[in-house]
Amino acid sequence: MQQPKEPFKLHPQLIADCNIIGDFQLSKLLLMNNSHYPWFILVPKRADISEIYQLTIGEQYQLTRESAFLAAQLMTAFTADKINIAALGNQVPQLHLHHIVRYKTDNAWPNPVWGNEQPLAYQPNELQLIQTKLDFLLTGELEYTASTV
Amino acid sequence: MQQPKEPFKLHPQLIADCNIIGDFQLSKLLLMNNSHYPWFILVPKRADISEIYQLTIGEQYQLTRESAFLAAQLMTAFTADKINIAALGNQVPQLHLHHIVRYKTDNAWPNPVWGNEQPLAYQPNELQLIQTKLDFLLTGELEYTASTV
Repeated sequence: MQQPKEPFKLHPQLIADCNIIGDFQLSKLLLMNNSHYPWFILVPKRADISEIYQLTIGEQYQLTRESAFLAAQLMTAFTADKINIAALGNQVPQLHLHHIVRYKTDNAWPNPVWGNEQPLAYQPNELQLIQTKLDFLLTGELEYTASTV
Repeated sequence: MQQPKEPFKLHPQLIADCNIIGDFQLSKLLLMNNSHYPWFILVPKRADISEIYQLTIGEQYQLTRESAFLAAQLMTAFTADKINIAALGNQVPQLHLHHIVRYKTDNAWPNPVWGNEQPLAYQPNELQLIQTKLDFLLTGELEYTASTV
């Protein structure tokens, strides 16, 4: 008999490091509290998943749609030079997919952003601006709803 | 009138850094010539693509299938602790998707592998072993064919 699964709960480290911006059908959208880079994270709302291949095929396709839509919107809205997308999870085992807006003028370019410097927390008004921007970009697509925080 | 597209050609930097291991339906499979980590790269055989969202939806799904299948096979066959998957492309603009087998005992753990040390080239017999292993793992799925090098 199959054990009933634990419900999905966001990993405490992601709660500590991020702000919750909204929800797609499958994934929560987070913003890393590091103003050095516009840095977003998708977390599929499924318990006990650490690798993309552990999702069902349908969920993998849904994650692909949410990720591609998010990346395309970020590229345009932030006039990015590149979007870096990564599922690492060496430190936080819960599956989460980084989407980092990169500029040829940013601190880490052309290297990846991890381990380059201490994060710099956003000011409340900066957070509000990004939240509003993302609401505008994403609402109405892929069942996206903005967080009401 | 639409311009005829250039045919797909592997980026010279990927040719310089990697060995060609085989082909899925959509993507070429490469092995980074760095024996510190079992490090594989999928390159969709489409010209002038630098972001996943620039592929058609069908191609995005196909890339997802090839990536998830590869990751699941690597996890088992290499007894990995984690698979790191990333589309960065800050230095090589041609879309390529890293799949890196990670161990809690490897040199960079728990950090990402980029920028940690100089690559250490494989010996010819090591390369042959990995090629044979991947042929065994992947042949017969998703139209995979091994490279005849």
